[in-house]
Amino acid sequence: MIMKKFRSDCPINCALDLVGDKWTLLIMRDMLVTKKQTFKEFSDSDEGIATNILSNRLALLEEHGIITKRKLPNNKKSNIYAPTQRGIDLLPIILEMAAWSFGHRANLNPDMLLTHQASVELYQQDKVAFLEQFNREFDEPVIV
Amino acid sequence: MIMKKFRSDCPINCALDLVGDKWTLLIMRDMLVTKKQTFKEFSDSDEGIATNILSNRLALLEEHGIITKRKLPNNKKSNIYAPTQRGIDLLPIILEMAAWSFGHRANLNPDMLLTHQASVELYQQDKVAFLEQFNREFDEPVIV
Repeated sequence: MIMKKFRSDCPINCALDLVGDKWTLLIMRDMLVTKKQTFKEFSDSDEGIATNILSNRLALLEEHGIITKRKLPNNKKSNIYAPTQRGIDLLPIILEMAAWSFGHRANLNPDMLLTHQASVELYQQDKVAFLEQFNREFDEPVIV
Repeated sequence: MIMKKFRSDCPINCALDLVGDKWTLLIMRDMLVTKKQTFKEFSDSDEGIATNILSNRLALLEEHGIITKRKLPNNKKSNIYAPTQRGIDLLPIILEMAAWSFGHRANLNPDMLLTHQASVELYQQDKVAFLEQFNREFDEPVIV
């Protein structure tokens, strides 16, 4: 794992230096919320990520210990991507983004899909319980 | 206020379309956490934002109703920037980013400053109470 040089030592900045762009947290949304695992699945998402950007972001996430890449024993062609604990812990940031959008939906984008709304409401009711349950869903041994 | 065309109607994407870059949430950090108000104050932050990027992001934030710009009666030269309720509501995203960085500090950036750590710990102890108190600190009439 490469130790990154950050713009400053502020913790907010450190997170933005790694995931502060329009695509990285969408890939993590796909991996954490919709449980996507393969390059093709991420590539098929509605936002239409370009394959070179997707390759670049997956490599960066792996380099910084946020995801892992492996092959299945019976399929040596596709890579399977999975979040590490560091990746799983990005979920509250993603859910707070969804909550913010729902909260300001009327002026922001009235057409916003209600996907994730039930999850966001459950999260807002009891954030600690929601995240504990979420962590249990990733039942494979987690590599930190 | 301009109604933006989003890449998709996913609420996570809608937030990323507005604040998904390396600078916008740093400006909001300065405004919300360190209570900075002027172009010069934002420009002086450690990360060294370029003035053209700062101008661009302030205009975008104003356009989307996340901040307001005004002049003080006794100083017509400087603009004073302040968050609207939509801007104030970005705080949980920012605090979750700080919490994530602190949580993975050992592998991420051991030199990370402990600035904001007390705030983040208070937030994590009782998120609802922390955000209510934070909202009360913005005592000026809030423009939504």
